[in-house]
Amino acid sequence: MKQTERPLILVTNDDGIFAPGIQTLAQEMTAFGRVLVVAPDKPQSAMGHAITIHNFLRLRKVDFTDGIEAYSCTGTPVDCVKLAVYHLIKGRPALLVSGINHGSNLSINVLYSGTMSAAVEGALEGIPSIGFSLMEYGIDASFDHVRPVVRTVTENVLRHGLGKGCCLNVNVPPAAAGPLKGIRACRQAPGTWEDAVETRRDPHGHEYHWLRGQFVARDQAHDTDVWATDHGYASVVPVQFDMTAHGELDRLNTWEHAL
Amino acid sequence: MKQTERPLILVTNDDGIFAPGIQTLAQEMTAFGRVLVVAPDKPQSAMGHAITIHNFLRLRKVDFTDGIEAYSCTGTPVDCVKLAVYHLIKGRPALLVSGINHGSNLSINVLYSGTMSAAVEGALEGIPSIGFSLMEYGIDASFDHVRPVVRTVTENVLRHGLGKGCCLNVNVPPAAAGPLKGIRACRQAPGTWEDAVETRRDPHGHEYHWLRGQFVARDQAHDTDVWATDHGYASVVPVQFDMTAHGELDRLNTWEHAL
Repeated sequence: MKQTERPLILVTNDDGIFAPGIQTLAQEMTAFGRVLVVAPDKPQSAMGHAITIHNFLRLRKVDFTDGIEAYSCTGTPVDCVKLAVYHLIKGRPALLVSGINHGSNLSINVLYSGTMSAAVEGALEGIPSIGFSLMEYGIDASFDHVRPVVRTVTENVLRHGLGKGCCLNVNVPPAAAGPLKGIRACRQAPGTWEDAVETRRDPHGHEYHWLRGQFVARDQAHDTDVWATDHGYASVVPVQFDMTAHGELDRLNTWEHAL
Repeated sequence: MKQTERPLILVTNDDGIFAPGIQTLAQEMTAFGRVLVVAPDKPQSAMGHAITIHNFLRLRKVDFTDGIEAYSCTGTPVDCVKLAVYHLIKGRPALLVSGINHGSNLSINVLYSGTMSAAVEGALEGIPSIGFSLMEYGIDASFDHVRPVVRTVTENVLRHGLGKGCCLNVNVPPAAAGPLKGIRACRQAPGTWEDAVETRRDPHGHEYHWLRGQFVARDQAHDTDVWATDHGYASVVPVQFDMTAHGELDRLNTWEHAL
């Protein structure tokens, strides 16, 4: 395949452009096409689908692993996608991959995750998009066992495409959990964050608060992403940006709506 | 009804605690129960489902319209919900309302909207939750015609409840569009933001970028929120936090998943 025919692949994340996870992901993508990295210049975890509208954004060309073309961005993961599509590329890449996130994005964490919001933004733009997460937070976590998952899922997406309006949320158990049994397509498990605030008192006697909490899965059914990753599989959840609860529409139409 | 029996209603927004919209909303809620306002201390539009994990949060008791109990919070709209539920209330209110947003949250803007993310967070916590938006940005916009919509939708939610895992996204056309024809239950219209970046050069010769763009609806079907509000109705979209594209699951299971 000639260089000019190779598809363009946009790589982003929410841990920042210098995180090991995005270096691994960008390296893997060089097997599939030309790679462009546009990622936040600092950690942007838990930024959800935030965009920057009250301030301007900067892009800066940076040195990156293996000489891959890369830009850091002062904004959020979703800002990175918008700047890549509308400024750097001025068009749509063949594929968008986000991650590899340092930490789980299972279950409802898809809502808080900057990694996944970048993938959802890609889907909004009509770009086949995948978010990858390793369920381990450490900066020195091993990504070696994640590489074959990245390759298999990427091959599938490039071969089969994705349904209109959806992207993929891929989570991989930590290496310490043992060899992967395979990849399972799953639904997002219901879950909540419990006991979510810790209150302290500063040296001046004033209260301040930290969000913390513990994630509790509310459903252990075998078709959920939580079950799959608990049982040695990488999970793949198809994620859509249509948040309409279609099953509720008929019921709402029976309400008395007079003003 | 005795004071102690009145349900507790949590009010938040993303425009900040001093925006006219939240004052209108809190006032309307006093007809339904005891009201607690916890809202950002500054505008937090377009923050999506962002939460604050790398910094602490402060709450400050503030004077508010009609002597309503109110706290400003240094974080995002979702932070406000977490601090209210896990610190101030230490329990779940009977209802959460967010807004009234200064500006539209139609279509895919549900993803970017701090107003709606607060409502989605309420739904995650099992609280019946509603986000209200007026499709007009001006600080001096009139909210008078929004009040009956707030009352009608709130009455319905308190009477009928909401389906598990869902909240409501209510959008109201500006007063200048003429008298409201009614309220319609709708699905989220597909749409995109186009031409989304404007690049300028600073006095030192360096580029910087503003997000801007124009929202373009991709579907004008009569069951969408965009159609309803274009035709003089307030729209009510049931929004769910399960983002699984259930229709895609069967197709993903046919993929060759070998590692």
